[in-house]
Amino acid sequence: MMKLARRILIGKPLHNQEMSHEKLPKWKALAIFSSDALSSVAYGPEEIMLMLTLPGIIAYGYLGPVSLAILALLAVVTISYVQVAKANPGGGGSYSVAIKHLGEVSALTAAAALFADYTLTVAVSVCAGTAAILSAFPILAEHEVGIDLAVLFGILMLVNLRGVREASTAFVYPTYAFIFGILALIGTGIYQALTQQLPIIPPESLSKQLDWTVFVLILRAFANGCSSMTGIEAISNGVPMFRAPEVRNAANTTYWMSGILGVMFIGISFLIMHFHLMPLEGVTALSQIAERTFGRGWLYYYIQITTMLVLYLAANTSFNGLPPLLSLLARDGYMPRYLGIRGERLSFSNGIILLTVAAGVLIFMYQGNTEHLISLYAIGVFLSFTIAQTGMVVHWRKERTPGWILRACINALGAIVTGIVVLIIAITKFFYGAWLVLVFIPFMIFIFKKIRSHYNDMSEQLHLPLEEFDPTTVTTLKAARNVVIVPVATPTNIVAHTLKYAKSISNDVVALHIAIDEATGLKVEEKWHDWNPGVELVTIYSPYRLIIQPLLNYISQLELQRKPEDYITILIPEFQTKKWWHRLLHNQTGWVLRTLLILRENVIVTTVPFHLKK
Amino acid sequence: MMKLARRILIGKPLHNQEMSHEKLPKWKALAIFSSDALSSVAYGPEEIMLMLTLPGIIAYGYLGPVSLAILALLAVVTISYVQVAKANPGGGGSYSVAIKHLGEVSALTAAAALFADYTLTVAVSVCAGTAAILSAFPILAEHEVGIDLAVLFGILMLVNLRGVREASTAFVYPTYAFIFGILALIGTGIYQALTQQLPIIPPESLSKQLDWTVFVLILRAFANGCSSMTGIEAISNGVPMFRAPEVRNAANTTYWMSGILGVMFIGISFLIMHFHLMPLEGVTALSQIAERTFGRGWLYYYIQITTMLVLYLAANTSFNGLPPLLSLLARDGYMPRYLGIRGERLSFSNGIILLTVAAGVLIFMYQGNTEHLISLYAIGVFLSFTIAQTGMVVHWRKERTPGWILRACINALGAIVTGIVVLIIAITKFFYGAWLVLVFIPFMIFIFKKIRSHYNDMSEQLHLPLEEFDPTTVTTLKAARNVVIVPVATPTNIVAHTLKYAKSISNDVVALHIAIDEATGLKVEEKWHDWNPGVELVTIYSPYRLIIQPLLNYISQLELQRKPEDYITILIPEFQTKKWWHRLLHNQTGWVLRTLLILRENVIVTTVPFHLKK
Repeated sequence: MMKLARRILIGKPLHNQEMSHEKLPKWKALAIFSSDALSSVAYGPEEIMLMLTLPGIIAYGYLGPVSLAILALLAVVTISYVQVAKANPGGGGSYSVAIKHLGEVSALTAAAALFADYTLTVAVSVCAGTAAILSAFPILAEHEVGIDLAVLFGILMLVNLRGVREASTAFVYPTYAFIFGILALIGTGIYQALTQQLPIIPPESLSKQLDWTVFVLILRAFANGCSSMTGIEAISNGVPMFRAPEVRNAANTTYWMSGILGVMFIGISFLIMHFHLMPLEGVTALSQIAERTFGRGWLYYYIQITTMLVLYLAANTSFNGLPPLLSLLARDGYMPRYLGIRGERLSFSNGIILLTVAAGVLIFMYQGNTEHLISLYAIGVFLSFTIAQTGMVVHWRKERTPGWILRACINALGAIVTGIVVLIIAITKFFYGAWLVLVFIPFMIFIFKKIRSHYNDMSEQLHLPLEEFDPTTVTTLKAARNVVIVPVATPTNIVAHTLKYAKSISNDVVALHIAIDEATGLKVEEKWHDWNPGVELVTIYSPYRLIIQPLLNYISQLELQRKPEDYITILIPEFQTKKWWHRLLHNQTGWVLRTLLILRENVIVTTVPFHLKK
Repeated sequence: MMKLARRILIGKPLHNQEMSHEKLPKWKALAIFSSDALSSVAYGPEEIMLMLTLPGIIAYGYLGPVSLAILALLAVVTISYVQVAKANPGGGGSYSVAIKHLGEVSALTAAAALFADYTLTVAVSVCAGTAAILSAFPILAEHEVGIDLAVLFGILMLVNLRGVREASTAFVYPTYAFIFGILALIGTGIYQALTQQLPIIPPESLSKQLDWTVFVLILRAFANGCSSMTGIEAISNGVPMFRAPEVRNAANTTYWMSGILGVMFIGISFLIMHFHLMPLEGVTALSQIAERTFGRGWLYYYIQITTMLVLYLAANTSFNGLPPLLSLLARDGYMPRYLGIRGERLSFSNGIILLTVAAGVLIFMYQGNTEHLISLYAIGVFLSFTIAQTGMVVHWRKERTPGWILRACINALGAIVTGIVVLIIAITKFFYGAWLVLVFIPFMIFIFKKIRSHYNDMSEQLHLPLEEFDPTTVTTLKAARNVVIVPVATPTNIVAHTLKYAKSISNDVVALHIAIDEATGLKVEEKWHDWNPGVELVTIYSPYRLIIQPLLNYISQLELQRKPEDYITILIPEFQTKKWWHRLLHNQTGWVLRTLLILRENVIVTTVPFHLKK
């Protein structure tokens, strides 16, 4: 049953050789790598607006400058990441760069930041995608969190456990459809702005005097807007998937992506300013623009649906990003080994489930509220940008290829700028959630190091010095004595069954009866004598009616007599009942004993199943 | 640590011989057996009043007649139970009587009814005790449920796990102090009633015309009042604890108890009428009477505190009643065997814990509200009365001792009267909670029978026909082959450790490596060859990266080759880590395999602990 459900949902296991190594043409790569970056125009400009339209301190006039600052930042980050792509033709993100050039702490910081980043990408994108569709169909509003979680668990997780091919052409259409729709929207909007009368904008909101309150608001708006830049690093991680010449194609694709992102970002910001939009509960800014420009016609619905699709797709990119990162961490011993194992469908199933659950918890905690999640978002992204850029500076200094100074300067600029952005976000957003990320990152680094140190300790203890052995002679594993103890309440079939197994594993079997009082003890001894199964019966009196304690004492006594390499095996019969609740009617002695004895060297507790037929 | 806490809370284990067999003088027995019955005057009369003072249909005038009807009922039940005591000098309640004379279904009905009854006695008495003290100290009101649960778990459960001696003299004082206080209260109250002017009672409330609504209310009041009679059967269950002549002493003590109960019940009902009390949130009727009679002086506090003590004591009597009943049921196979085992302090610990938890759940569900609990209460009590009396009729018919016809008639009257009461309560209280008890009883009977049938099946399967064996010759347990499989990822110390144990239990050991791809497989084989531990290595290729499935297949293959009595043992190394969270870093393969293989005959999964030193 379980197996059938699994086959239907996940599909049949895939052979090692079915791993795909497809190479992508640029037009396909652009769509596949950029859904995360491009889709962020669905919430980035809106998040800037939110900060500048707070009741009482409307500072709308600064929307333009903030947008332009972000555009400039985009340019710096783009150029920096083209350098990353050039230096790492084998692919690899901030973690790989940092572990190569900056050492463990930076690498783990990047890993922790990316962990937060990928998880938040999933949470934010899913919520924003749902928000897009709820703007069009407000009747669904009360099911918001339910839709979020259904998309997350029912679609994203399952699809990824099946193992999507990253390069599936099905993923290309929504991205281009979205780009086409947004560009059409911007074009129409600007045409209307030029030909029609401008809406009246209250002049005081445009000329708000700059003071400290306003300045902080502007910084917060900038910090919010930085969320538009998430995903920009995707191409540099995926250089090997491009057709030759890989590096040049990847670089060009990065320029194209940033160019499109820049145009869409500025276009939407312009329309927000032009229409002088204000936040509206349950309706996204993009939906407001689309409605004002196109009316509620099919073009409006086209925009909302493609926006939803591209955002869900953006969430999906994290599923291509985090699980491989976790498998790298697992390979290096910073995460549990099982995160590095490919599942039956060749995907890193455990990583996929971990990401799904983490994002699900975030969505549930924040009740699908994009605005609150954004506060957590940008800091991790920019922290990993900064680390990657710093790593690149070290890289160029080591390489000293022709022109290295210029390249190092570009990356240094990138590192400084993104570093400043990290500070701005950390400070202005501290109380709005950034503290959570700032606590999470050191905590994760601590965890990474603890795990690594455990694995190191372990491999030391497990090491078998193979070089010391001579293959031509059998390495002797000292033959050891094994005393087998079978606790007996009274001679029954199950005792016979257990003794039979005991005799098959040792010639040294003791049946142990713990008697509550003398009468019972004598009765059992008499029965034993009648039966005479050829095994010695030891009776221990326990007038305090304890069962486990006398058994433990008996084992301790045996331990004193034996040689250190000898074994003591306790065989506990275990009823395998036909109905689950029948188990409640039997003692769980096996489990208790195993727990109590697990710390003793060379004492083994084995449960021997006895199958009840009804 | 655990052990120390246990010693302090529960005390040191007690030897079998420390079981007490003290005989009680009448004055002590009266106090010890009657706290349940007598304490019910703290809520019984109040519950009658509650029904007759509903807003809009005040029918106060019927309080007198209802009280007198209950008094008559008390007389009938008392005489009937004196008969029970005479017929069962060995003690034993409704269950014992029914299983002897009426058969399984009646006995189980009585057992289920008593189960409900004892549990409700605990819940009602604890809540009423707390209500008594909250009336005096209303500042504690918001902690009501907390106090209830603290008394239940912190005092009653612990004290009983320590194993109270039922006969402890400490239990005698509160009962007499309570009787003394209540009699003083009634005496003073009546004196005041005779000498002072009567309060004005609104005449319409006294002369409410009888109609169907009022009639149903009167029946409900009567049903509520029946809760005063709970605990009356206690003495007949404890005849062997009396001094000789046991039966006569028990009978006389029963008369005394009922006499005192009757006087207190009628006295309090009279004062409720006289003061024309109305229900008051957070203040019990008894508290109202005490305050009006004594003012808020020390006598008032004396009444409240002794009431509280005697009620908690009444709750305690259930701890002497239910666990032994459960142990009888366990002995007869209707309840899990472990309910029949005396714990280290000679008390039936599991039964005590079960009762505590059940009562705790009730208190929590009903938020300590006595009124709602009372609705559930009386039905179980009277059902077990009816069954016991019916059983007695059968008993006298069988015995036919001189005068048996009179005795049978007395018990028949008791059975008929209490049977009618059961019907009245079941019908009038149906929607107020009685339905719950009426569902619970058949449900429990079903459970009892299911458990019994499982134990029957089991003992049949476990039966070893000892009489067929000849004690002079050793009964041969066929020696069987045992193939031991040790799964190997790569040769390490832990593999060496596990193989050593494998060799100690069999000469037929196979190391099994499941290789994800050929390269890994060859590498492991090469290492194995270098090591040469004298054990065959079997490599299975699993290009779909499954681990468990190929192992299961290999076992199935072996199963086909072996003889039915042969064993297959799978040894799984289990890391015993130094820190608990390290366990999360290792696969739980042992557990998974045991679950998957438990249904196969003669396949044993053993985990061999390997102790990591750091």
